[in-house]
Amino acid sequence: MSNIAASIITIGDELLIGQTIDTNSAWIAMRLNEQGIDLLRRVAVGDERNAIVNALNEELTGASLVIITGGLGPTADDITKPLLRDYFGGTMRPDERVLAHVQSIFAKRNRPVLERNLKQAEVPDSCTVLFNRLGTAPGMWFEKDEKVIIALPGVPFEMAGIMTEEVLPRLKERFKSDAIVHYSVITAGEGESFIAEKIQDLEEALPAHIKLAYLPGAGAVKLRLTGKGSDEAKLNEEIQVHQLAIATRLEDIVISLHDVPMEQILYNWFTAHGQTLGLAESCTGGYIAHHITQIAGASSYFKGSMVCYSEESKQHILGVNKATIDENGVVSEATVTEMARGLLKTLDVDYALAITGLLGPATPADREATGTVWMAVAGKGKVSSKKFLFHYDRHRNKEVAVSMAMLMIYKFVTQGEYPWKP
Amino acid sequence: MSNIAASIITIGDELLIGQTIDTNSAWIAMRLNEQGIDLLRRVAVGDERNAIVNALNEELTGASLVIITGGLGPTADDITKPLLRDYFGGTMRPDERVLAHVQSIFAKRNRPVLERNLKQAEVPDSCTVLFNRLGTAPGMWFEKDEKVIIALPGVPFEMAGIMTEEVLPRLKERFKSDAIVHYSVITAGEGESFIAEKIQDLEEALPAHIKLAYLPGAGAVKLRLTGKGSDEAKLNEEIQVHQLAIATRLEDIVISLHDVPMEQILYNWFTAHGQTLGLAESCTGGYIAHHITQIAGASSYFKGSMVCYSEESKQHILGVNKATIDENGVVSEATVTEMARGLLKTLDVDYALAITGLLGPATPADREATGTVWMAVAGKGKVSSKKFLFHYDRHRNKEVAVSMAMLMIYKFVTQGEYPWKP
Repeated sequence: MSNIAASIITIGDELLIGQTIDTNSAWIAMRLNEQGIDLLRRVAVGDERNAIVNALNEELTGASLVIITGGLGPTADDITKPLLRDYFGGTMRPDERVLAHVQSIFAKRNRPVLERNLKQAEVPDSCTVLFNRLGTAPGMWFEKDEKVIIALPGVPFEMAGIMTEEVLPRLKERFKSDAIVHYSVITAGEGESFIAEKIQDLEEALPAHIKLAYLPGAGAVKLRLTGKGSDEAKLNEEIQVHQLAIATRLEDIVISLHDVPMEQILYNWFTAHGQTLGLAESCTGGYIAHHITQIAGASSYFKGSMVCYSEESKQHILGVNKATIDENGVVSEATVTEMARGLLKTLDVDYALAITGLLGPATPADREATGTVWMAVAGKGKVSSKKFLFHYDRHRNKEVAVSMAMLMIYKFVTQGEYPWKP
Repeated sequence: MSNIAASIITIGDELLIGQTIDTNSAWIAMRLNEQGIDLLRRVAVGDERNAIVNALNEELTGASLVIITGGLGPTADDITKPLLRDYFGGTMRPDERVLAHVQSIFAKRNRPVLERNLKQAEVPDSCTVLFNRLGTAPGMWFEKDEKVIIALPGVPFEMAGIMTEEVLPRLKERFKSDAIVHYSVITAGEGESFIAEKIQDLEEALPAHIKLAYLPGAGAVKLRLTGKGSDEAKLNEEIQVHQLAIATRLEDIVISLHDVPMEQILYNWFTAHGQTLGLAESCTGGYIAHHITQIAGASSYFKGSMVCYSEESKQHILGVNKATIDENGVVSEATVTEMARGLLKTLDVDYALAITGLLGPATPADREATGTVWMAVAGKGKVSSKKFLFHYDRHRNKEVAVSMAMLMIYKFVTQGEYPWKP
């Protein structure tokens, strides 16, 4: 059975002058892909009536599902809603549930509800309202000539909330297709081509209805097996065999068989083993701690991060010897090792990671050293340190350093074991 | 004189399954906009011949300039390049300069040049070659019926290199157009609709060639004035009058007349005044420090952040009294104030911000308190504390808390003055 063909239309002048990078399209594309819906095209147009109407007409010729984001905010530069009313017919009516929601939001914030806010509750009666729990602009579901058109606000977290709670379940219902199952093998520390080389025969042996995708991220490569078939139970059994074969072949670079971020994997291990963790961050400036605390309940094992951006604080708070820094420099194995050891005491934790480096941009003085990062993990009387050299710009170097740091912690605490094994 | 209308076509299956976020389009859009070239549409299609041809035909009906990125790599170019050859005519010929460049690159890396690498030097003789100093795939400039079609590789830094060195100078030469100018008023602390209400008359009084757009972010709203005209000097004068009128009306919520992030505004103030800053973060888990250290050179004023995720660390690193926490709770004015005061000593800084709160998700125990965040800024013998209540999910609450924290620091250090005033 062939897949549903979809298009995404993103609306907003800011997209056409480069003020905003469109992350919504990629997020929606991934969700659709998981449900076996093929995305044909993505189109971005400005806040201009004809441009939007033309885009709708064009995309509806090729796609049976069109998702529109943007242009639903409370201010004057938003013109999408009346346009959709004209396009799909019907008249504007306030939706009681949305109206109550808008009023409660403003009440909570002790702000007067303005006329333009109340208007957000108005929707064409030709649509099904998609409730927006996280904001004031509701999503809208229209149907025309057997095709589905969905309009969502452009604010990423509101869009994602409505997609998850309202749209995806309805799409599953509306477009019955073959069962689609996804299984992952999360790896870290090796490149895409290294992995492809190592599992080439296993990949070639995959049946036609099971596809393997490489999803490279910062310092990690996610392998995603996607299977399609009418008998879901049989499909699950079959695909798990391939998943395990690939994981077993890649043994020591496999981190997980579940598609969860590294911070979740760390949370699972530390809470399961009743151990605690602390960080001493210099060049990553708290970004590792940020990732770790994205997981609710992280406080049960994560005690904190000493972001020491000055030499003095490295000495006073982490107890690094001034002599060590003077002799070896701030970015050195000796300094990072003392930082890690010092943090074990400062935060009284079982394990500590320390990181210090130069992320760039390069100044004439440190051109040679730029991109150099030292990391150390200490705990249970052991210390392990490693030097990295990153070649990107400051922001990208920070991203990669964070992934490598979390991986280094994981390898240190799990050494020998393969927690992913069944 | 009316502006040139342009379209961008990005090619790649990875864009349609959400594997890659398209940053090229935004970058190109910004460059075109700076040259007064209007971007009409952005379209993304997969590595599929018909999809690409259809997109080209469609975009060429409305635009007089089409920029294509992607599909020129050593593995993908068997689709796009021959397609362009067929579309614009001509025959494939190796370009001597590119050929020599490809060979030198592989020589430098001591890698054998493969057949498919040599093929990268082949281009249709119907195009002008756009030299790619940073990679092996050259860009191509085609002309057809008075229209210009440019094909560039998808690797962002290669694309940017060719655009800067080869494309933009040629476009300036080829298309003379109206000037486009942008002016911003960056506000924080109030919502989009509140602002719209407050400046409605000023917005309505704008002439037709000056447009106002609202760009809401986490805790901040950016107002962008865009003007278009033949006399750039006159246009600049005229639009600055409106910018100042709006800023003056919004006075105390305006943080800048320049479109820079809050962390840059803090960097500018602290370095200009020779003051230092430190943080004591609990619920934001290092995320404020991450933002501040995104600015290169932040270490000249930012000394660090004590991410204290446990009560013990709040006590022995920040010197918060156990009694204070026991009597008032960790999320309280008394605790956050002691955290801020304590940090002034711990990091020996001029100003300190402390933050503690419950970001969620709500557990039955703390449902009432979830979203409650206390912040305090201390310095120069003064302390100011404030309670916030956020209503989003954990991640969004963190984003907004960070914006509010940076704003609170800014308001505290600049109190009374309006640094944006001319």
